[in-house]
Amino acid sequence: MTDIKAVVFDVFGTVVDWREGVARELRAFFERHGAAAADAHAAADAWRRRYQPAMEECRSGRRPFTRLDVLHRENLDAVLRECGLDPAAIAACELDELNRAWHRLDPWPDAVEGLARLKRRYVIAPLSNGNVALLLNMARRAGLPWDAILGAEVARAYKPQPEAYLRTADILGLSPGEVCLVAAHNSDLAAARTCGLKTAFVPRPREHGPGQATDLKPEGPWDVVAADFLDLARQLGC
Amino acid sequence: MTDIKAVVFDVFGTVVDWREGVARELRAFFERHGAAAADAHAAADAWRRRYQPAMEECRSGRRPFTRLDVLHRENLDAVLRECGLDPAAIAACELDELNRAWHRLDPWPDAVEGLARLKRRYVIAPLSNGNVALLLNMARRAGLPWDAILGAEVARAYKPQPEAYLRTADILGLSPGEVCLVAAHNSDLAAARTCGLKTAFVPRPREHGPGQATDLKPEGPWDVVAADFLDLARQLGC
Repeated sequence: MTDIKAVVFDVFGTVVDWREGVARELRAFFERHGAAAADAHAAADAWRRRYQPAMEECRSGRRPFTRLDVLHRENLDAVLRECGLDPAAIAACELDELNRAWHRLDPWPDAVEGLARLKRRYVIAPLSNGNVALLLNMARRAGLPWDAILGAEVARAYKPQPEAYLRTADILGLSPGEVCLVAAHNSDLAAARTCGLKTAFVPRPREHGPGQATDLKPEGPWDVVAADFLDLARQLGC
Repeated sequence: MTDIKAVVFDVFGTVVDWREGVARELRAFFERHGAAAADAHAAADAWRRRYQPAMEECRSGRRPFTRLDVLHRENLDAVLRECGLDPAAIAACELDELNRAWHRLDPWPDAVEGLARLKRRYVIAPLSNGNVALLLNMARRAGLPWDAILGAEVARAYKPQPEAYLRTADILGLSPGEVCLVAAHNSDLAAARTCGLKTAFVPRPREHGPGQATDLKPEGPWDVVAADFLDLARQLGC
């Protein structure tokens, strides 16, 4: 791990708590639109469930690379219909504003301080499927001290496509082995490891709420397993 | 100007003093290689003179988009030959290190504080022909507090191609009129204005040394003309 120059991060679930943040904004939206009985957490989960299939359209080549804000917005219409609301009857600007709930997610309690410590020694950047504007607005609101905003939109490829990892290292002017991906998801780390990146697992056992059954433990030979970002910083010599 | 959400910056000459920084590293290199009589400022100027023609190969489509670190490295070989040195006789790693002189440029005295003030109210990012690693390393060394690293490599187009400006606004999730380009170069501002961006001119009358004859004054209907970045921040309400 002594060769590492940059530490890059999965964001949704690893740095920020998407489920509570999205549910909070959905709940307020449902109340404004006479749907207070709708389950905001279930709707957040439904919105997130449409995330991988939407990106898969781009990964497969059936659709050109399309930034996540656009995919989220399309998926929102579908989720609202499932909740019994007609998106066509709601002002587009209000739906766009709700869509930007993904720009306003709160970091896990250890994230900002852990990133600040890691930044002293390493280049830090997101390597997220979120688009640049989303990650930038999130960073300004939450105080995430990134050196640059990288990820799918800059690499023009969605994780776990190899190009997402390899182009990010190349853009940083580094070899894959000089870059460490931090993620709460074993599948993301497995794809990064295949590309030659170093890997660090940080469990986020409440990402999917109290009943979470996946990604509770490391499931591969990751270079680092840390309890949180403060422990990660400590293990990486910061 | 009340619509502005993001302020983006030309970097070489506008934020940092490339000529003194590059000449400083060339001088030390010449001394190490028995060429102390070579004029480091003239060599810096010669290196910079090859910048536009090299990018023009990419702009014209004769060459695929190639990041600036690579173009600088090719141009360095040519400059050294003009100075009577044989680059093939020098270790590649030493030439690569010299090439990264462009990553180690000092900001003009007002730049860091001006950017910090502007950041309170606006998204700030470079819109430079420099590549991401170059701009990122420069920012870490100099303390430039960018929200994101944007520019030619992310837009896959070199200024003054319209795509460089338009894709940068699009990536920020903004319309061109919500983005203001700050530059010390009238030609850069003219291209940005044609694309619908707002424009701010900040003269840097020593960019080209004591005999500078160009870009001493605004030469177009720029939205703002400021003496330096502190004056710019003041005029933009920061």
